[in-house]
Amino acid sequence: MPPDNPGPNSTDGSPRIAHVGIAVESLAAILPFFRDVLGMAEVPMSDSDGARIAAVQSGESLIEFLEPAAPDTPIGKYVAKRGAGIHHICVAVPDIEQTLETCRSAGIQLIDEAPRLGAEGKRIAFLHPKSTGGILVELTEQ
Amino acid sequence: MPPDNPGPNSTDGSPRIAHVGIAVESLAAILPFFRDVLGMAEVPMSDSDGARIAAVQSGESLIEFLEPAAPDTPIGKYVAKRGAGIHHICVAVPDIEQTLETCRSAGIQLIDEAPRLGAEGKRIAFLHPKSTGGILVELTEQ
Repeated sequence: MPPDNPGPNSTDGSPRIAHVGIAVESLAAILPFFRDVLGMAEVPMSDSDGARIAAVQSGESLIEFLEPAAPDTPIGKYVAKRGAGIHHICVAVPDIEQTLETCRSAGIQLIDEAPRLGAEGKRIAFLHPKSTGGILVELTEQ
Repeated sequence: MPPDNPGPNSTDGSPRIAHVGIAVESLAAILPFFRDVLGMAEVPMSDSDGARIAAVQSGESLIEFLEPAAPDTPIGKYVAKRGAGIHHICVAVPDIEQTLETCRSAGIQLIDEAPRLGAEGKRIAFLHPKSTGGILVELTEQ
C-alpha cells in the first residue's frame, strides 16, 4: 500500500525521519505552540493505541503528539513514569523488509518480526529499545 | 554567520526539524545502529556542554546523540533521572529573532531572550519546556 502522506522529499531513497512521536499530558498544552506560533501546518491523524494523536508538518517530517486517552494505556504509563517527553522516533526506509533483515543480522532485537500495518495504513515495525541504546525506534516504509 | 551544515532542503523557508537531540548512556551503544545498520552518514560534531556528541544525517535533519562526559552535567543528570531518551527537538526557522518575538508575544517563556551562538556556529535559542507542553525546544536559524 503506498504511503498516504509521504512528505515532500521522500523519494530519494535515503533513510529520513518520518516522524518524532512526543508523549504529552495535553494536546491543548503543546499543539498551539507548534501550529500557531511556529506556523507548522496541522496534519489530520487517526487516534490509535489508546492515544489521541495530533501532528504538524515540519519540513519532510511530522511531529506527532500523543495524549493518553486513559492512564492505563502505553502512553499514559509513559507519561506517568517519565513525564512529557519524546516517546519514539520513526525512520522511513526504502524497503522495510530488507531493513528488518539487516537489523536481524546485526543482532538488533525486534518487537515486530515482520512489518504490520500502522495507523496511517503504512507498513511499520518497532525495534526493541534494548538494542538501540534505550531509544524506541519505529521503521516505516517510504 | 551562515549555517555550516544546512542540510539538503533548508532553503524553502518553512520551519523544519534541524535535529533531534537524544541523551544516551553510551554513544557506542547506539551510534553503530543508526550509522552502520540504517546506513545514515555520520556528521562530525564538536563536543559541548559537558557532553560527547555524535550525529548522523537523516534526510534533511540530523539525529544528535549526547553522551554525558560526567554525571554532574545537564545530560548526565537527565540520563540519571529519566534514562536514555530524546532530550530536545531543534526547529530551524528562517528568522530566529522574528520567531523569538512571536513566541514572546504569545506568552512563551524563553530560556534565551536573544539568540546566542551554538556549538556549530549557528544562532540558537532555547524555549522553556513549561511553555511548550514539557518538551525542550531549541530554535536555530536556517
